[in-house]
Amino acid sequence: MIQHDDTRVIGIDLGGSNVRTAVVNAQGRMLARDQDITPARERSEAIVRAVLESVTRVLEKAHMAASDLGAVGLACAGLSSPETGILYTSPNLPGLKDVPLADLVEKELGKKVLLMNDANAAAIGELHLGAARGARNFIYITISTGIGGGVIIDGKIYTGSIGFASEPGHMVIDDEGPVCYCGSKGCWETLASGTALERYARQCIEEGRKTSILDYADGDAERVTAEDVHKAAQAGDALANEVIARTAYYVGVGLANLINIFNPELIVIGGGLSNIGDMLLKPAYDEAKRRAFPQIYQAVRFARAELGDDSGLLGAAIFVLGEMDGLGRLSIR
Amino acid sequence: MIQHDDTRVIGIDLGGSNVRTAVVNAQGRMLARDQDITPARERSEAIVRAVLESVTRVLEKAHMAASDLGAVGLACAGLSSPETGILYTSPNLPGLKDVPLADLVEKELGKKVLLMNDANAAAIGELHLGAARGARNFIYITISTGIGGGVIIDGKIYTGSIGFASEPGHMVIDDEGPVCYCGSKGCWETLASGTALERYARQCIEEGRKTSILDYADGDAERVTAEDVHKAAQAGDALANEVIARTAYYVGVGLANLINIFNPELIVIGGGLSNIGDMLLKPAYDEAKRRAFPQIYQAVRFARAELGDDSGLLGAAIFVLGEMDGLGRLSIR
Repeated sequence: MIQHDDTRVIGIDLGGSNVRTAVVNAQGRMLARDQDITPARERSEAIVRAVLESVTRVLEKAHMAASDLGAVGLACAGLSSPETGILYTSPNLPGLKDVPLADLVEKELGKKVLLMNDANAAAIGELHLGAARGARNFIYITISTGIGGGVIIDGKIYTGSIGFASEPGHMVIDDEGPVCYCGSKGCWETLASGTALERYARQCIEEGRKTSILDYADGDAERVTAEDVHKAAQAGDALANEVIARTAYYVGVGLANLINIFNPELIVIGGGLSNIGDMLLKPAYDEAKRRAFPQIYQAVRFARAELGDDSGLLGAAIFVLGEMDGLGRLSIR
Repeated sequence: MIQHDDTRVIGIDLGGSNVRTAVVNAQGRMLARDQDITPARERSEAIVRAVLESVTRVLEKAHMAASDLGAVGLACAGLSSPETGILYTSPNLPGLKDVPLADLVEKELGKKVLLMNDANAAAIGELHLGAARGARNFIYITISTGIGGGVIIDGKIYTGSIGFASEPGHMVIDDEGPVCYCGSKGCWETLASGTALERYARQCIEEGRKTSILDYADGDAERVTAEDVHKAAQAGDALANEVIARTAYYVGVGLANLINIFNPELIVIGGGLSNIGDMLLKPAYDEAKRRAFPQIYQAVRFARAELGDDSGLLGAAIFVLGEMDGLGRLSIR
């Protein structure tokens, strides 16, 4: 299949909170978009239906039919295989276990669907349209509920021998650390994610530590979010600052590992928790500096992700566009 | 420069204990070899002299002059840059710090010298002539005094943005673990190397634990080696078995990280400590299985390195042969 300039594809980002779809042209520009709540706790049929409904709406907005599409890129959190199109397991979508997700969507649309990990898609998005333009070897990290990552090597996404790479969020940084849903202990995301930050804040509050964090959460420790902690920290709350500093420390330990392993030229950080900004990221980079080889650390540049919630969506679209021209290269910028 | 079938190169493996050299032909066959003790505690001049003397001897053995050589591949433990030819730091060769090692050897021989990390060289050796023949994505790990690694992606060594990758031995697996020479804490090699095993054995002995390990070390706790512990374990000593099981556990934690990060098809394990064999490696693989995603673990195969002490030597030679033909591919097998 040859990619013409008038090729249009759909990118889908199926997340634990939202399903996002967009029609994207061969230049990487969004022509229409749609967003809906993901029925995350329901069975696979309901989730697939939500995806298809969003696709129908976005096609309507673009005044297109499915037959006008080149192909579809479907990004989803969790362990999936681009080759089989099967989603094996997703932490945020428990109803999707060993589901042939690409096939299910493909059957309804009559168009080729490529399934990929959402962080890998976001890495591709940032590479072509965001903070990593021009990079050859870089790592995208998203810190939110969990921690995901995508590794770009020589300008291409690295997916490993059968498409499962990479899962840096499940790199052990404290072998006796908290139990992870994956079955291991002390995975990076059990200590450095938004969930980890919130859990530690609640634990300190329940232990009776003096803090104003509860003022931001209607007095309910169970409802404390990372955003509440951030607000309290900005207002000078000591515990809130301690909680963020602790999370930053663990973010930095994991970054040091990735630096020593990959010698990347660039690390791009996205995800909801990164919105805390310098208060979280500066001490994280400092901890990484303390731990990584100085020569390797000096070679790395850090950047904030630029595409926000659109990175997965755009990356999924760009990935299928790249596959379509058969060269692994895109006609965009 | 075009590689002809009669091209001959020299591979050098400069280690903390020995300097090994070999003349290797374009088919990857050793035509002559030499080995000498490394003056590891001396200054760089003495170390370079030892390398040059070994090269002189191996050329004599092969009835060749330096002018007959295509080029030279020089593998060395530590952080080095293939582009600048500088060795920045080497744990086992403290005299070599920010030394332009490739230039120094090049000046004397009048031939191009390519400097590379010894574990990267060993990975190349195992890929072309050893346990990883035919693999596309694999990781070579050497467990000895420290832990080194080389990552092969799409059939080529992955060296990162400026040649420092990869240093998996300095991946943190216990953020509050033992202090590492690199400045970090709880690096994989502080817990899973031969040095770590020996330190823990000595510590237990000094704490008065009942064991026969000392019988293998002339009664001197300070002289206990990994080999002594292995012998005592084979004879049924409880502490020796515990020490090996503990090391295996940590080996497994690090392997799980590499599996989750790289989704490799194969992990090849070499280095002195791996000679303990199944007693160390089987429980290590079991721990990796407990920690890695089941789907990713199922996709990996483990193998013992096949080239032993020759892996770095041969890999360094093969790497320069590959660079010479300008295609990154070799005419061997």
